[in-house]
Amino acid sequence: MTDTLNTGIGLEASAADIVAELTTEEQASLTSGASFWTTQAVERAGIPAIVLTDGPHGVRLQKGSADHLGIGDSVPATCFPPAVALGSTFDPELLERVGRALGEEARAEGVGVLLGPGINIKRSPLCGRNFEYLSEDPIVSGVLGSALVTGLQSQGVGASLKHFAANNQEHDRMTASSDVDPRPLREIYLRGFQRVVEDAQPWTVMCSYNRLNGVYTSEDPWLLTSVLRDEWGFEGLVVSDWGAVNDRVVGLPAGLDLEMPSSDGRSAAKLVAAVADGSLDAQALELGARRVVELVQKAVAGASADAGYDADAHHALAREAAARAAVLLKNDGAILPLAADTRVAVIGEFARTPRYQGAGSSLINPTKLDNALDAVIAVAGAERVAFAPGFTIDGSDATGLVESAVAAAAGADAVLVFLGLPGSYESEGFDRENLRLPAEQLALLDAVVAANANVVVVLAGGGVVELPFADDVPAILEGWLGGQAGGSGIVDVLYGAVDPSGRLAETIPLRLEDTPAFLDFPGEFGHVRYGEGLFVGYRWYDARDAAVHYPFGHGLSYTTFEYSGLSVTGGDSGLTVRVTVTNTGSRTGREVVQVYTGRSGSAVQRAPRELKGFASVELAAGESREVEIAVRREDLAYWDLRVDRWIVEGGEYSVEVGASSRDLRLSAAVEVAGDTVRLPLSLESSIAEVAADPIAGPIVMQAMASFAGGMADTDIFDAEGLEKMMASFPVGKLVGFPGVPATPEQIQQLIDAANGAAQAGAAGAQG
Amino acid sequence: MTDTLNTGIGLEASAADIVAELTTEEQASLTSGASFWTTQAVERAGIPAIVLTDGPHGVRLQKGSADHLGIGDSVPATCFPPAVALGSTFDPELLERVGRALGEEARAEGVGVLLGPGINIKRSPLCGRNFEYLSEDPIVSGVLGSALVTGLQSQGVGASLKHFAANNQEHDRMTASSDVDPRPLREIYLRGFQRVVEDAQPWTVMCSYNRLNGVYTSEDPWLLTSVLRDEWGFEGLVVSDWGAVNDRVVGLPAGLDLEMPSSDGRSAAKLVAAVADGSLDAQALELGARRVVELVQKAVAGASADAGYDADAHHALAREAAARAAVLLKNDGAILPLAADTRVAVIGEFARTPRYQGAGSSLINPTKLDNALDAVIAVAGAERVAFAPGFTIDGSDATGLVESAVAAAAGADAVLVFLGLPGSYESEGFDRENLRLPAEQLALLDAVVAANANVVVVLAGGGVVELPFADDVPAILEGWLGGQAGGSGIVDVLYGAVDPSGRLAETIPLRLEDTPAFLDFPGEFGHVRYGEGLFVGYRWYDARDAAVHYPFGHGLSYTTFEYSGLSVTGGDSGLTVRVTVTNTGSRTGREVVQVYTGRSGSAVQRAPRELKGFASVELAAGESREVEIAVRREDLAYWDLRVDRWIVEGGEYSVEVGASSRDLRLSAAVEVAGDTVRLPLSLESSIAEVAADPIAGPIVMQAMASFAGGMADTDIFDAEGLEKMMASFPVGKLVGFPGVPATPEQIQQLIDAANGAAQAGAAGAQG
Repeated sequence: MTDTLNTGIGLEASAADIVAELTTEEQASLTSGASFWTTQAVERAGIPAIVLTDGPHGVRLQKGSADHLGIGDSVPATCFPPAVALGSTFDPELLERVGRALGEEARAEGVGVLLGPGINIKRSPLCGRNFEYLSEDPIVSGVLGSALVTGLQSQGVGASLKHFAANNQEHDRMTASSDVDPRPLREIYLRGFQRVVEDAQPWTVMCSYNRLNGVYTSEDPWLLTSVLRDEWGFEGLVVSDWGAVNDRVVGLPAGLDLEMPSSDGRSAAKLVAAVADGSLDAQALELGARRVVELVQKAVAGASADAGYDADAHHALAREAAARAAVLLKNDGAILPLAADTRVAVIGEFARTPRYQGAGSSLINPTKLDNALDAVIAVAGAERVAFAPGFTIDGSDATGLVESAVAAAAGADAVLVFLGLPGSYESEGFDRENLRLPAEQLALLDAVVAANANVVVVLAGGGVVELPFADDVPAILEGWLGGQAGGSGIVDVLYGAVDPSGRLAETIPLRLEDTPAFLDFPGEFGHVRYGEGLFVGYRWYDARDAAVHYPFGHGLSYTTFEYSGLSVTGGDSGLTVRVTVTNTGSRTGREVVQVYTGRSGSAVQRAPRELKGFASVELAAGESREVEIAVRREDLAYWDLRVDRWIVEGGEYSVEVGASSRDLRLSAAVEVAGDTVRLPLSLESSIAEVAADPIAGPIVMQAMASFAGGMADTDIFDAEGLEKMMASFPVGKLVGFPGVPATPEQIQQLIDAANGAAQAGAAGAQG
Repeated sequence: MTDTLNTGIGLEASAADIVAELTTEEQASLTSGASFWTTQAVERAGIPAIVLTDGPHGVRLQKGSADHLGIGDSVPATCFPPAVALGSTFDPELLERVGRALGEEARAEGVGVLLGPGINIKRSPLCGRNFEYLSEDPIVSGVLGSALVTGLQSQGVGASLKHFAANNQEHDRMTASSDVDPRPLREIYLRGFQRVVEDAQPWTVMCSYNRLNGVYTSEDPWLLTSVLRDEWGFEGLVVSDWGAVNDRVVGLPAGLDLEMPSSDGRSAAKLVAAVADGSLDAQALELGARRVVELVQKAVAGASADAGYDADAHHALAREAAARAAVLLKNDGAILPLAADTRVAVIGEFARTPRYQGAGSSLINPTKLDNALDAVIAVAGAERVAFAPGFTIDGSDATGLVESAVAAAAGADAVLVFLGLPGSYESEGFDRENLRLPAEQLALLDAVVAANANVVVVLAGGGVVELPFADDVPAILEGWLGGQAGGSGIVDVLYGAVDPSGRLAETIPLRLEDTPAFLDFPGEFGHVRYGEGLFVGYRWYDARDAAVHYPFGHGLSYTTFEYSGLSVTGGDSGLTVRVTVTNTGSRTGREVVQVYTGRSGSAVQRAPRELKGFASVELAAGESREVEIAVRREDLAYWDLRVDRWIVEGGEYSVEVGASSRDLRLSAAVEVAGDTVRLPLSLESSIAEVAADPIAGPIVMQAMASFAGGMADTDIFDAEGLEKMMASFPVGKLVGFPGVPATPEQIQQLIDAANGAAQAGAAGAQG
């Protein structure tokens, strides 16, 4: 990024002016990487190269010599908790601070763009890369993703919002088509991306590997231009995921500005040839090159040669985030928090050898690494701590491990059992095969519980697991992947230094078989039908009134909270929800207040409730605070297939406020004014549609009356049945049935007249 | 049909010759009806009109004067049990006899084509027309549908196989698009149609009202020609459902030969104009007209002026079918069959006023009508029978009804409670809103059970209902809609004159919320996504290992059967399954032996088990018989998206034999030779696909070796993870990653060479 500026027009000129000075070859060269991690410089024009490098939860900058492979060792950097953990905090303020810290580190390393955040929806808990994603809910993903981007970019480093879009599995990720209907695509899979683009304007968006409804996202003009830019107002650059380009000449005009990594000049040559033979518009190439120059300008402006960062402060932030992410699933008899003088057995190899991040491109070389065992000893003193590994992480040779763990457990007041998913179970590049913990870990737990029932299970892993032991232990603390300070962070929660305020950003199901996508994940022969449609995560379980192990939004605290005084007011920009939360316990704690809306009797399919806002609030013992949560009007909208746009349905909405999707404390009803959808009537309109039209209805219904009368005289339908059946009958198809006193032409004339009258009426009402 | 033959070429000539003599106007006129129920005659050419009229479970021929509306009173005809009941018999022999009887009646009334059978899949139990359909399983639908067609057509009367296709709801049936992926479309929704066409060659197939993947079935050349004729070999005529034509000029060349009802000449005029202006090929019109003439020829040949039928014999057959259709869901303590001298309370208005058929176009004017109350009195004698209506069918004024029912129950040894769906709950033209019986019926039952626990619930209705009372009563007999002799037929079962051998052709779920299509039925804004894909009915519950109330195939007998000696042998045409069934009880009974196959570890999505064959077998007490059931090889095939054809996957199949889908008594494994699918390799082929190719693999893998070696040296993936991730990597996308020592051109050359070698190898192996 510090390439010497040359004698060109100067990087301070407008990107358009700079690009106008370049040859076609130079323009083309800008639109592909120069190496694995750098863009192409054009020294003649004073355009330097910039560095893009993996995130999302740390800076994975490779040392010089390893660059040619793109996957070698990287410089030390703070490994913050991956997205699976950050999502559970439900706290945009915290994520913004993490984003800032990431920005500081990136800037210190000369990185112009950090590749993240990943905000894909956790469609199935099996997705191998779920640890890199925030939630099964698009509002959580969108709000938290925006906060990360905002924090990162505040340091003059660009984000890369990924993986755009509908990349919800690793299996066949380079070729599979995610076949998604318009409503789930808009309302679930794109909604978070839209939120981040509109709220935080990431410098870049990274297209995904997969196809979407048959089209590679890397060459989908609808996705990359119509939706991303024209609808959402994206102003940045679209970069390919590394190797996601299929046909570069198709991708560029579709909106894929920058191909990464280097294609050794092949793509540039193709683009130049395509401009020459007229198959590619020269303006499209200019536009792509201009966006690369704009990105370089931003990166250069944000760069600082003498930037550094405070590694200890970042480690402390990583620890704070890890503690805030832990979800206390269960705490019978208030076994947690532990008193410092409790004699504890610490069991499980993960206490000593933490599982703290996932495998793949996000793998960070941490600046330091805490483990829970050391952290427990630091609090309780070595004399009160007995450790036994209990199992090996790879499941190999466990001779005697269970026995010594049982012995340790038997002699303790409380037992902390650290279980988790081995790294080999989940990674970028492949999906999990089931939701089970390794059998040897479950067997160990059974043996330990038999020796001492006072067990706290502490889980590590990038995704949810089945919990067959949930009824056998008094407490379960889900620590996810906690980053480099996960070990100390989780111990902060275990001993009460931090009140557990992590909440489930994904449902924990009873069984894999219960999960929404179970039957069509991961698809076959290059296609994945998103058959569950809108009903992802808690939307599915709630709509089917199905049992789960722990619901979305769930997480216990060491204190208790009461909700009171709910008020909901509506305005043009949405709803304002106010509720008073009181800490009714005896210690400071943090509550995540959740707001869900519903619209019973809706004209469209809907989940019974959808999260629309949330707030993380710390309260001292006895403290009360009124929390205000805004629900944006656009978040109430559904995607209307008839008009291809967002529509807010008018009517009464329920607003439920509570501590989880199934622990709703207060509710209110609020009337929302709807958007107008007026579709012109046609011969395909149903009788019900025609009848419902205030202006057109009477005219057309008159012509139908004698037919309906004739039908009603018969006995094969009763009157009510006839009415129900006729409601969906297209008016145009009535012709041909005897008794209808009109020709198609006459009906068409009537409809035209009705549409005209309706239009005139609408104009009159506006005038 | 008895129009005088004129001085034309004569109907005995070939249809092609006849049509060649006609003017374009005459040809066009043939392709639309002349009235609501008749085709157009061309007297000049000696082509008479024929009559088509509603079925499917009786002849609904309208009296002369009512014809102009198409929905008036019809001549008396035997109302056989509707398809919901016939499907439960699992007995093609019985259905063929019913088909013959229908044919006799149709011929006696001068009807050339009886509109039926309807064999659409019961996708959701809510579908208002499910009573007209056979099953949730395509093999049951196909086998029984074939038997009905064969029986009907044996009498010189044509069938009309309907509603083709994917018409699985009534809501918005005239316009909604059933959006179905290729595999469920082929394997579930079309499979039964294919079976009937191939096995029974119905004279006509009726296209449905709906759209299929966006295209009106009435104008879908893929459906009506490519699939129906080219693939399946259909030789008959395609007729529109009444009013299903959208654009006649588009529909005719797509394969819709005959539009019904009359369009008053409008369609013919459009066709003539289209031929004139060249937008319609004259040959397409000739073809449509030829098929109409061929149908007329068949109908004329089958007609008989002096045909009649034995109404009493048909009533007896209707009674036999009704008894055979009843499914004994539960019979604790062998409360059934009743002894003739039991003092019984008969409770429920349906015992006196039977619900025996559904509303809509299939409504039959019965020759006579039995009710259960009379039939019970006939067996037990009036002195042993107390009747109380208990409720009114429409739920109105029930003053005192519950009290008198309770009093009747209290004084009886056994109580028969006749509950059911009122006719207003289900009909052609609209769907049910829930699966509940009316609240007043459930309340009555509670009151009766409190007075006398010895209750047998007898259900009437065209579809399944939730059974909240199942644990409260010792016996439940599902009688469906039993046709005009349903009342006596059900009493034959209650008193043991007939052993209950009805089996569930559709799962009874615990709750509507559990059903596969719950979340996307009936769709919105003109689209219905079949999101559950292949997993319809029991396939869903089995794949998700979910609880049901009563499983597919379930039904008790008054005796017991043992299964032994299973053998499965394979051959080119499929599997032959032999099993010995023994009646181990003390009375004659009938068992429905069911054969399910599975293929665990399949390369494609599959249900754990799928019904592939069945046999209904009557056995005297103590009798043993070896039953042989053929499983056709084509029924083992899945539809392969890659090659767009049926493929039998090779490998080990499980063959399970039993009395229901969840009462499997014996199982065996059998090795099946697979069909060969060789896809040419391409740059999009995955490394795993390339590696698996016996000839091409080694060549291409060699070029990849150094890249894989480079990746393995890094630490962001472990070796196993790397292998899993790379497996799905397209070989073409490896280029561009550093370390791959090849250009795209070189890889393409290698692949071409490999494909060539593979082709030569295949040719050599065949030569």
